[in-house]
Amino acid sequence: MATEFELIQRYFSRPAPSAVLGAGDDCALVRPKPGMTLAVTTDMLLEGTHFHAGADARRLGHKSLAVNLSDLAAMGADPHWGLLSLALPAADESWLAAFAEGFYALAARHGVDLIGGDTTRGPLTISVTLIGEVPVELALRRDGALPGDDIWVSGSTGEAALALAALSGRIALAEPFITQCLARLEAPDPRVELGGRLRGLARSAIDVSDGLLADLGHILEMSGSGAEVWYDTLPRAPGIAACGDESLARECVTSGGDDYELLFTAPPHRRGEVQDLSADLGLVLTRIGSIVPGESRAILRDAHGHAMPVVHPGFDHFR
Amino acid sequence: MATEFELIQRYFSRPAPSAVLGAGDDCALVRPKPGMTLAVTTDMLLEGTHFHAGADARRLGHKSLAVNLSDLAAMGADPHWGLLSLALPAADESWLAAFAEGFYALAARHGVDLIGGDTTRGPLTISVTLIGEVPVELALRRDGALPGDDIWVSGSTGEAALALAALSGRIALAEPFITQCLARLEAPDPRVELGGRLRGLARSAIDVSDGLLADLGHILEMSGSGAEVWYDTLPRAPGIAACGDESLARECVTSGGDDYELLFTAPPHRRGEVQDLSADLGLVLTRIGSIVPGESRAILRDAHGHAMPVVHPGFDHFR
Repeated sequence: MATEFELIQRYFSRPAPSAVLGAGDDCALVRPKPGMTLAVTTDMLLEGTHFHAGADARRLGHKSLAVNLSDLAAMGADPHWGLLSLALPAADESWLAAFAEGFYALAARHGVDLIGGDTTRGPLTISVTLIGEVPVELALRRDGALPGDDIWVSGSTGEAALALAALSGRIALAEPFITQCLARLEAPDPRVELGGRLRGLARSAIDVSDGLLADLGHILEMSGSGAEVWYDTLPRAPGIAACGDESLARECVTSGGDDYELLFTAPPHRRGEVQDLSADLGLVLTRIGSIVPGESRAILRDAHGHAMPVVHPGFDHFR
Repeated sequence: MATEFELIQRYFSRPAPSAVLGAGDDCALVRPKPGMTLAVTTDMLLEGTHFHAGADARRLGHKSLAVNLSDLAAMGADPHWGLLSLALPAADESWLAAFAEGFYALAARHGVDLIGGDTTRGPLTISVTLIGEVPVELALRRDGALPGDDIWVSGSTGEAALALAALSGRIALAEPFITQCLARLEAPDPRVELGGRLRGLARSAIDVSDGLLADLGHILEMSGSGAEVWYDTLPRAPGIAACGDESLARECVTSGGDDYELLFTAPPHRRGEVQDLSADLGLVLTRIGSIVPGESRAILRDAHGHAMPVVHPGFDHFR
């Protein structure tokens, strides 16, 4: 059987041209651009908590990087350097090959070099740290929203949660919707380019991982403002529109999580620029509400302006 | 029960004065010093692989940071910023309080700010990423050893492995040796200051985590040289000297691992400076051999100059 060193060597030693020194020493060495601020994020994915046993290795490689890219995007940072720690129940070469393929394919798409990591034996666990750069004054923080700001969301939310509902047998989804929803869950497309283009345009941003309203809540807490969200404006992906269970659809769209869209705020006089950006990127950007003065919570309103109950306050691993 | 957010808030949100923005946003923001190169390292510790179930939480907090500090020290880098990802089987407050205490105490001693991380439910897993700075031309790489260099090791090796042998019942160790060996295993003291002082003095360095000869082997591979190591010169800690089993003692000292000492090479004309540094730091630095031309392997020699068999080629989780 291959040794740990041989396995790492075989699957995770592609060149890292942007590093002074990549994997293979005690540390990797990288040199930031003068004047840039580093944006650093880390996420850990566990079998049984974040994905089911037997999940597709290629998609896991993709997703473990995608969720971190999404955090950099939400900060408006350009991704550069990644570290990957893996605990594996066994030295399974075909699994590693597929995982590496998924990881490196997404890394290449966004200019990320893998510069280090760790491999060990244990229950399947994937921990990725990602380092990017952003000019400090343009970083998209959660605390910059101001009353009067428009609230925008990219793409659509809810299909990842709908896939989970289908996997757990709560609902039956027909093709092509089930395939589309599973792709959203297992191979999300992080909005890296959008994040970069929102620098200097958005006043605050977050990525939607806990659920649209829960993540908006984080912006509100940090910005000390409230929000009104118009339920009917929330973008509906085909799977959501087709699911036939309005209560589940609402739960998924507003509170499902695992969406990896960007939620951001911008002043109303910049609506035109946001719309131009949407056209430019070929990515739907939808205005879904407003930041308002007052208590740090979001009120969801129906088409008649009535407050709607919020089904689910977002994802918490320990609840 | 406290939510995930409340737990993180309570135990892992101490101020990070060196960061532009610490935990609580999508990414942390940090600003490197102009002209410095970043040294980045990551290590993952799992229950059952790296520590036993029920291990002391305070010491785990210490060790999970210590093993990463040791990697930075081996690069000659000054530590600055840490990220901590934790998978926990339950939201156990007293465990978290003790873990945080051990982590932050060591962090404070070495000027590390915790700037981010992730908490999730799962089998106890600790993943730490550490970022430091080093002037690029002075980084202590593994590939800089030259034939003729002296080989040095700090402190002593073997007591951590001896503690493991005692825990597994392979040997009985009396007090005070068992307590001392357990401290070496569970609360290693990373040689951060030594690493910084070796900049411009050592030609190559590595930290001893896999075992003295295995780690020397990494330097030899990267430097394309061989080595002679004189067994009788290897420093013997009190526990090793007292253990009464010469074969086990040899195995622990040469191949035990988990020592977190620094192994480095320096040209012979700088012996005096290394000895002065030893006196300055109050840390034993021992000359244990020489880099020689030829095949990338270390030959261990006894007092008569005869080659000795090497018991154990070092640690590999998948062997």
